[in-house]
Amino acid sequence: MLKIAIIGVGTVGSSVINILQDNKDIIAARAGCEIVPTIGVVNNLDKKREVNIKLTDNIDEVFNDDSIDMIVELMGGIEKPYEIVKKALAKGIPVVTANKALLAYHRYELQDLAGDTPFEYEASVAGGIPIVNALREGLSANHIESIKGILNGTCNYMLTKMINEGVNYEEILKEAQALGYAEADPTFDVGGFDAAHKLLILASIAYGIDAKPEDILIEGIQNISKHDIAFAKEFNYTIKLLTIAKKIGNEIQLRVHPVFISINEMIAKVDGVMNGISVIGDKVGETMYYGPGAGGNATASAVIANIIDIARKGKGSPMLGFEKSLKQDLVLANPNTIETNYYLRLQIEDKPGVLAKIASVLGDKNISIEKMLQKPDENNNALLLLSTHICKEKDIKEALEALENLSYVSAKPAMIRIEA
Amino acid sequence: MLKIAIIGVGTVGSSVINILQDNKDIIAARAGCEIVPTIGVVNNLDKKREVNIKLTDNIDEVFNDDSIDMIVELMGGIEKPYEIVKKALAKGIPVVTANKALLAYHRYELQDLAGDTPFEYEASVAGGIPIVNALREGLSANHIESIKGILNGTCNYMLTKMINEGVNYEEILKEAQALGYAEADPTFDVGGFDAAHKLLILASIAYGIDAKPEDILIEGIQNISKHDIAFAKEFNYTIKLLTIAKKIGNEIQLRVHPVFISINEMIAKVDGVMNGISVIGDKVGETMYYGPGAGGNATASAVIANIIDIARKGKGSPMLGFEKSLKQDLVLANPNTIETNYYLRLQIEDKPGVLAKIASVLGDKNISIEKMLQKPDENNNALLLLSTHICKEKDIKEALEALENLSYVSAKPAMIRIEA
Repeated sequence: MLKIAIIGVGTVGSSVINILQDNKDIIAARAGCEIVPTIGVVNNLDKKREVNIKLTDNIDEVFNDDSIDMIVELMGGIEKPYEIVKKALAKGIPVVTANKALLAYHRYELQDLAGDTPFEYEASVAGGIPIVNALREGLSANHIESIKGILNGTCNYMLTKMINEGVNYEEILKEAQALGYAEADPTFDVGGFDAAHKLLILASIAYGIDAKPEDILIEGIQNISKHDIAFAKEFNYTIKLLTIAKKIGNEIQLRVHPVFISINEMIAKVDGVMNGISVIGDKVGETMYYGPGAGGNATASAVIANIIDIARKGKGSPMLGFEKSLKQDLVLANPNTIETNYYLRLQIEDKPGVLAKIASVLGDKNISIEKMLQKPDENNNALLLLSTHICKEKDIKEALEALENLSYVSAKPAMIRIEA
Repeated sequence: MLKIAIIGVGTVGSSVINILQDNKDIIAARAGCEIVPTIGVVNNLDKKREVNIKLTDNIDEVFNDDSIDMIVELMGGIEKPYEIVKKALAKGIPVVTANKALLAYHRYELQDLAGDTPFEYEASVAGGIPIVNALREGLSANHIESIKGILNGTCNYMLTKMINEGVNYEEILKEAQALGYAEADPTFDVGGFDAAHKLLILASIAYGIDAKPEDILIEGIQNISKHDIAFAKEFNYTIKLLTIAKKIGNEIQLRVHPVFISINEMIAKVDGVMNGISVIGDKVGETMYYGPGAGGNATASAVIANIIDIARKGKGSPMLGFEKSLKQDLVLANPNTIETNYYLRLQIEDKPGVLAKIASVLGDKNISIEKMLQKPDENNNALLLLSTHICKEKDIKEALEALENLSYVSAKPAMIRIEA
């Protein structure tokens, strides 16, 4: 029998307790022993919770009980769970967490601290999809060429509605908030930060590369307009908030931003609140993983998978996928080294010669236009929507700055990268 | 250092050897030790192979060499590899195999024989997709409600071409043979037997249920006509050869057959030679896995993932996913208990009263029509293409027999199940 303490009994914590009880027979058959949620630690004992378990607001009750075999950290936040997890690992107690923020900041320290003590975190990325498992074990023979993920269900829900139903950003944000898909302050989701935390975890498993959220390119979906949607539809693209890890030589690009992507790509077919991750390995080619990225039961499914794994075999794979550090020296790429196709949205005065001047600004930066759509906007300005051939991020940024300063460009130009 | 013997150096065996050599640095970093392909066993030493390894045609060279740490069985067939794997496991040598036929017939005996000796088989199902890993470890908290798989790339390639390009079955079979996607005798693929082998392996992991190919419903794609394709297009279906495992109460349906399936289902978007598996767990909901189901490098990627897992942690999860047998008594369902929507293709004489008689035959069996399409065929017969509301397999079969015996039904009626 394995006795589990649950630290944090919110949506996910309650689901973990309930599933361990509901599915106890099949879990015991798969794990080889009974797994019993024994105590839950909460901040507020007065709050009503739909669980049948002893609750306490004193974490010491867990640490003072030598019969506890494993700690499941589901409290959220960073520094407080960090202290608790460190304390557990120092005592050699196996830990399972779903805490992406904790790992985005402290994964390497925690790996060192854990040593031979099992420390698992499947639920921290893409909820119920076993992507940590797939990347760390299933694809371990491969150099990973790229990971492209739809890792934030809130953004994907909003973008899907914007594209399929023509709803605008402000409307759909309100709807997502009403449905509980988006927070009152939605920045963490729509700004790309949640997805970035998850990307950093996957990048460690794929490349053994350490980086913090502050180190990487993160752009959100706040500025996507109906004109961008129109351009996407015209040219068989969809728009997704994509997390991208890409190996170019010994440089690893890590970035989160909206992209135009062909509707024919498998990852482009991941709609609504669902998550998806496409991984390209140098030997296996593309594999893709799809499923619910959030929700109590889906996330708990991944948490319990880790608990069962630890019950089955103790310490399994190395936490972040590498037993020894790689000899190859991989470094984080500067975002200015990105080379891709770009989409630009320019609001311009509708008069002769303007297009020529814009084309010449782009030409000066070695940027050539691939597709273009011009139409009037609601204020009798002209909207110029265009995509470029492959060019350099640095050049695009300089061109955007130059364009913004032109007198007949009447609003800050918008740029969205195109993922080939 | 881990020394590996490769039994069978064909397409997959050669890829395993080459990848272990090409990617040896990253594999060593992930595994914690060097993994060295040491000897290959072949039938014909004279055949040219693109590998840099010692070859022998004498398997005893492997068994007499105590320095061999692991055997990788990639020879194909059933009884000969069975003897070799049994001998290895009896000596306590870890085994990795990609042999689905071996497992379709002998997986439980091999699990018993293996005991604490690692015995893995990720590559036996869906090539490079780590579906064994996902189902056995990633979804272990769940009762599995269903598994729907596109597990045969040959059939999926053919059906995709038939639907997207209007090519007929005979033409596309010839093309698939020319491209090397289909064998000279294509029965094993197009008849559904290859997919059935893989389904049986997944069903063991999901349900702990033993069955042989002979025990389950297997139908191939040989009888799909352009009229069926037309019906699919008319009603927003696509046609896939689907492997289905479904839990209804304590009965497990295991079946392989073509289905009509809505183009909006994620699994319906898996096209060409690619494989996909949709799994529904009672807690996680639907997750889906997509990737290359065949090919030397993709299959080798899965084989090597197993080798690395064994290097990392020795015996990992229980081979077929269960440490103890389940208390629940799951039994294989009789195919006659299937209840679903059905599609029928009837070739009938085009004269008054015929439709009424057909409708009455169906009505007598409690089968009601949902959608219908009638059109003339090339021989001035009428083609009646229809789908039914949900009804019983037993009733449909009896209705088909009754219809076949009607004088104005001029060819054997065809039936395809519709997957909701």
